[in-house]
Amino acid sequence: MTTSPHDAGAPSARTIVNRYRHLAHYDRPTIDAILDAMPVAHIAYLHEGQPIVTPTLQWREGDRVYWHGANNGRMMRATEGADVCLTVSILDGLVLARSAFNFNVNHRSVMVFGKAEAVTDREEKVRLLTRLINSFAPNQWDKLRPATAPEINATAILSLKIGEASAKVRSGPPEDNEGDYAHPVWAGVLPIRLTVGAAEPDPRNLPGVAAPDLSGYRIG
Amino acid sequence: MTTSPHDAGAPSARTIVNRYRHLAHYDRPTIDAILDAMPVAHIAYLHEGQPIVTPTLQWREGDRVYWHGANNGRMMRATEGADVCLTVSILDGLVLARSAFNFNVNHRSVMVFGKAEAVTDREEKVRLLTRLINSFAPNQWDKLRPATAPEINATAILSLKIGEASAKVRSGPPEDNEGDYAHPVWAGVLPIRLTVGAAEPDPRNLPGVAAPDLSGYRIG
Ligand SMILES: Cc1cc2nc3c(=O)[nH]c(=O)nc-3n(C[C@H](O)[C@H](O)[C@H](O)COP(=O)(O)OP(=O)(O)OC[C@H]3O[C@@H](n4cnc5c(N)ncnc54)[C@H](O)[C@@H]3O)c2cc1C
Ligand SMILES: Cc1cc2nc3c(=O)[nH]c(=O)nc-3n(C[C@H](O)[C@H](O)[C@H](O)COP(=O)(O)OP(=O)(O)OC[C@H]3O[C@@H](n4cnc5c(N)ncnc54)[C@H](O)[C@@H]3O)c2cc1C
Ligand code: HEM
Ligand code: HEM
Repeated sequence: MTTSPHDAGAPSARTIVNRYRHLAHYDRPTIDAILDAMPVAHIAYLHEGQPIVTPTLQWREGDRVYWHGANNGRMMRATEGADVCLTVSILDGLVLARSAFNFNVNHRSVMVFGKAEAVTDREEKVRLLTRLINSFAPNQWDKLRPATAPEINATAILSLKIGEASAKVRSGPPEDNEGDYAHPVWAGVLPIRLTVGAAEPDPRNLPGVAAPDLSGYRIG
Repeated sequence: MTTSPHDAGAPSARTIVNRYRHLAHYDRPTIDAILDAMPVAHIAYLHEGQPIVTPTLQWREGDRVYWHGANNGRMMRATEGADVCLTVSILDGLVLARSAFNFNVNHRSVMVFGKAEAVTDREEKVRLLTRLINSFAPNQWDKLRPATAPEINATAILSLKIGEASAKVRSGPPEDNEGDYAHPVWAGVLPIRLTVGAAEPDPRNLPGVAAPDLSGYRIG
């Protein structure tokens, strides 16, 4: 493996980006911004020798990413204490080039490697779940029917230190071979983004309940 | 493991959905519609004992999903001939319930398990890459600077039979505990979707090149 200036910041051998390495970033502001923009992660783990990837919500606090699920669920059992890879990706556009080979997508993505650790302290679990709820709707936790002890017990929270992590980011027009710019075909980007629609009240809402302020919610 | 009516269609033991099993679907029209709506897949595989998940474009033809990458790239080397799990997920909304425990997301997702097989026939590779390009921009392949033999040789295509697959689909308002409907808090759905913006021409486009018809492109 050759090293390039781009490898300089890689925190470990397995996080060195080999392909399209000019798209690599290892700095925490870049990594954190991607994690914070996209709550959906895909977590890879081994179960009975089989690699599995499960879509799961993640949320970040400081140096850690968190996810939650059923205490006795397969994904949570298989990831606790195990080596996992947590990947977050955002598709920003299709990149139409002058040659098929240089088609690409604009994207932001992060991979985090490490051992998943369980959050076992009950108050810490409640604190983290409160943050999860309130990250979608500010102050919503306090308005809800209070969580019960059996509900908290049924819920597992796992976390991963953002230690071994890498990001790849691509934006802008295609990068064609210099000679191909003379080829008379349209090239450019078809931008894609996630948009948040107007809140849809549950038909069973009680009359007069006040809608939470969801106008600040951003994704992608 | 108990069986429910929902397990009836599961093609194998490892594709039986255990959690929220009322969301499970095993029929091909449901699975195919999700795969066709979302080109981004996340593929889990083992590399030197470590589970990894890599975001990658997938496209479907009949009973197979395909993905492509560098012939000598780590992801393509590690997945060829290996047991993989290919997951496609679409986030359709945040579901705000009356209790924290019943918060959820509306989503559509598919998991496919199996051994990845390489497409080795050169003409078949070109045919599949043509489909990939034209799935984004109709008839674009023929307008491009023609692909060269070294480019095709540098490209690997792998595929997976859609044999062992499952889907989970959630839509609609929250499902709260019956007693919680009397709790006076707003509940409902914040819809989220992918939108396609106006095409952004490359500043280096030659004067007069005709923009492809991208108006039909849908995602999500
Ligand atoms: C939306 C989207 C679509 C993509 N579609 C394709 C496709 O169709 N074909 C294709 O070949 N590739 C695609 N990629 C890029 C893909 O994720 C990999 O980066 C690429 O395939 C190289 O994989 P590798 O294992 O050979 O990389 P290597 O460079 O050998 O991986 C080494 C290390 O680099 C880091 N790394 C690799 N990929 C990423 C990443 N995406 N984000 C953050 N860190 C990373 C990890 O730390 C990894 O351990 C896509 C990416 C995104 C986000
Ligand atoms: C956008 C999104 C966000 C999610 N967020 C969370 C979260 O924060 N916490 C959480 O616990 N779960 C979340 N899920 C659900 C998650 O993907 C799993 O379905 C769930 O965690 C149960 O995992 P398990 O391994 O215990 O499932 P099991 O039911 O034991 O898995 C058994 C089999 O069911 C099938 N299966 C399981 N999950 C899926 C799936 N998503 N799609 C298709 N087939 C599937 C597979 O064939 C799998 O082998 C989310 C799903 C999506 C799409
Ligand atoms: C914004 C807040 C939350 C969201 C969006 C959310 C979303 C989800 C999703 C999508 C699942 C997977 C369901 C499935 O398998 O299809 C899940 C599972 C679960 N969640 Fe949450 N959740 C949230 C908050 C909470 C809180 C606060 C608790 C605990 C009080 C909790 C407890 C659980 C448990 C126990 C499961 C596993 C259910 C099972 O598999 O039987 N969640 N959550
Ligand atoms: C719609 C069409 C296509 C899209 C959107 C697309 C997208 C991508 C993306 C996102 C990557 C990963 C780049 C990275 O690692 O950051 C990639 C890699 C690659 N693509 Fe494509 N591609 C397309 C068509 C093609 C075609 C037609 C060919 C061959 C003629 C091709 C050959 C390759 C090769 C060889 C790589 C690996 C590059 C490397 O890692 O060095 N692609 N493609």
